Amino acid sequence: MSVFEESLHLHKVLRGKISVRNKMDVRTVEDLSQVYSPGVAAPCEAIAADPEKVYEYTMKGNTVAIVTDGSSVLGLGNIGPKAALPVMEGKAMLFRKFAEIDAFPICLDTQDTNEIVRTVELLAPVFGGVNLEDIAAPRCFEIERRLQNLGIPVFHDDQDGTAIVVLAALINSSKVLKKSLFQLKVVVNGAGAAGTAITRMLRCHGYEEDVQACISVKDVIACDSHGIVSLSRTDLNVEKLELLSYTNIGNLSGSLKDALVGADVFIGVSRGNLITADDVRTMAPDPIIFALANPIPEIMPEDAKEGGAAIIGTGRSDLPNQINNVLGFPGIFRGALDARAPRITAGMKLAAAHAIADCLPNPTRDHIIPATLDPVVSFRVAEAVKNAAHNAKNLEENKMDV
Amino acid sequence: MSVFEESLHLHKVLRGKISVRNKMDVRTVEDLSQVYSPGVAAPCEAIAADPEKVYEYTMKGNTVAIVTDGSSVLGLGNIGPKAALPVMEGKAMLFRKFAEIDAFPICLDTQDTNEIVRTVELLAPVFGGVNLEDIAAPRCFEIERRLQNLGIPVFHDDQDGTAIVVLAALINSSKVLKKSLFQLKVVVNGAGAAGTAITRMLRCHGYEEDVQACISVKDVIACDSHGIVSLSRTDLNVEKLELLSYTNIGNLSGSLKDALVGADVFIGVSRGNLITADDVRTMAPDPIIFALANPIPEIMPEDAKEGGAAIIGTGRSDLPNQINNVLGFPGIFRGALDARAPRITAGMKLAAAHAIADCLPNPTRDHIIPATLDPVVSFRVAEAVKNAAHNAKNLEENKMDV
Repeated sequence: MSVFEESLHLHKVLRGKISVRNKMDVRTVEDLSQVYSPGVAAPCEAIAADPEKVYEYTMKGNTVAIVTDGSSVLGLGNIGPKAALPVMEGKAMLFRKFAEIDAFPICLDTQDTNEIVRTVELLAPVFGGVNLEDIAAPRCFEIERRLQNLGIPVFHDDQDGTAIVVLAALINSSKVLKKSLFQLKVVVNGAGAAGTAITRMLRCHGYEEDVQACISVKDVIACDSHGIVSLSRTDLNVEKLELLSYTNIGNLSGSLKDALVGADVFIGVSRGNLITADDVRTMAPDPIIFALANPIPEIMPEDAKEGGAAIIGTGRSDLPNQINNVLGFPGIFRGALDARAPRITAGMKLAAAHAIADCLPNPTRDHIIPATLDPVVSFRVAEAVKNAAHNAKNLEENKMDV
Repeated sequence: MSVFEESLHLHKVLRGKISVRNKMDVRTVEDLSQVYSPGVAAPCEAIAADPEKVYEYTMKGNTVAIVTDGSSVLGLGNIGPKAALPVMEGKAMLFRKFAEIDAFPICLDTQDTNEIVRTVELLAPVFGGVNLEDIAAPRCFEIERRLQNLGIPVFHDDQDGTAIVVLAALINSSKVLKKSLFQLKVVVNGAGAAGTAITRMLRCHGYEEDVQACISVKDVIACDSHGIVSLSRTDLNVEKLELLSYTNIGNLSGSLKDALVGADVFIGVSRGNLITADDVRTMAPDPIIFALANPIPEIMPEDAKEGGAAIIGTGRSDLPNQINNVLGFPGIFRGALDARAPRITAGMKLAAAHAIADCLPNPTRDHIIPATLDPVVSFRVAEAVKNAAHNAKNLEENKMDV
């Protein structure tokens, strides 16, 4: 059986991969009186008197909503909220597995930005955090931005989750190759949710508050399906014009292949089979190739190697150097929840990237990033994110003191 | 320690009474490939091709949303969505305990009818049913009504859940006392969610589709805090005017005490300490008293007995004849989910009431209703509701054939 047939069979047997369970049994009338009426009135009244107590007496502080509109699911595209549910259940499993977080799928029957924002606001009382998932660009940018003052962390994993893990892989790759991260010329192919977030993070765009922690890569060239995002283009939307404002310092125009000439790094978050060994040959010596399209990478590792690639990462579990979001989001939310952070700041994101990278003190070309199922990673990430959250809080309090 | 102190302590230790758990462990890369990327694409695509398959491959078919706006929680009133969460978690525990249902609290940060309706519509993809909870009257009537065509059962437990269990208790009480249910004169005190639903059910109002199964009690008099709901009142809102259209056949006006004179049954869903032994003495011989206000009943059992009450039920677990919703909702949803019913029909509600009553083949005055923790009840109720759902479906299909 193929992995797809096996998965279909498994889903049919399980009929849901997660389950809501009681933390204690209700065996007696006394049990019932404590967990429900009349005793439950006590925590209710305590919270009514002091809403912050909701973290003390309820599930809120450990609970994350996985919110999608089903508009950009895996490589499958706009398949809608019902068809997205198996992915969200799987995501919830990973939250439990790697971070002991209670995560619950919220698949919304709308793709309207205002409705999605409003619904998340209305759902907030039960949740300690919100993981936005598989929402199409450019809608996802506005939704994430408008929810940053909700009082609980709202994080779009396809954007910043991906960017964090890519940055971790890039930190270790430059360490292995003894290249300076600051001096790299990077081509990011794909200007959707992931590509935009990667580019922002590499260029520290919007990271001013934590500028001391930020590694700004000298030159990033963003490409979309029409080629280099450049001044000569007349088809750029608002998001891509903004992208242009902090990329392409050489004002290059042309195709993806043009962008690759002399580049140190290719990061693909686009489609399979886009570049060839010959393209890799045009890059700078010892190029780094992260071909993250799933299931078929932008270039297969054997072709990249033939073209001279020094380090190759993909999104696939059956190949070396799997660059997988699961290294990031569980620990990021664990740390944010433990710190009761009101949002996930740039500093927390950078701390997460460094913590992932630091899990491998001696990275090698075939081992630039921890194994996807390494159980230590999420704890290290959580610790780093929690500390960064406390720093961010102190920074903010100091500002208010001035 | 009081039950309130014990409960507060328990809530502090547990920090959430329910938890989201994985149905299988993710230990290997192969496991990950099946529950998540890339294998999960298979069930996603199957559901995208046929949305009904969401019941086959996901948690939807066993999952219920417990939706509240926190506007009418226990006897505590409008304490808001955060303070309502301990109750909703407790409710979720009971769904698990008695019916193996995965229930999840949705506490909405709005008390606007349109927003609540719309949010439930948007959340529907993940859920197989919706239990509305602790939403104040009259808003709750409109919300429940507007959601009846959502395609999944939407049930306001404070309305019909209470009515079903009260009807079960009344069926067995009249059996014990050899009174005819049809001939009873019933006073319902409290014209909110529960009182209105009880009255509707006793009078079969809106039950036309299942009229053959309906027991219409001859005379029901509804009272609110201003006395009998009658033509002489000038303060009645739309809901109470509708209530009047199928109650008070004798066109009585006056106070609750006036209503009680000659009545066979008092059903209180109001406030503590409202009637006295002397009031009970004015009722018909061998009166039935269901004093369901919590924690303090409308009349304490010893006073009701002194006044001549033949059967006394309360909402309290420390007194005989506890009339508790937990006898109803778990089995009702279990049956509705198993039948994949699009809504909970009048026939399903009546079937549930009779199933609860029938759990006691030989009821007595101190045992008119099964024990709250009797594990058999929910299974009997589920079976009856499932059968009624199939009957309703057949009826509808027959209608379409004509």
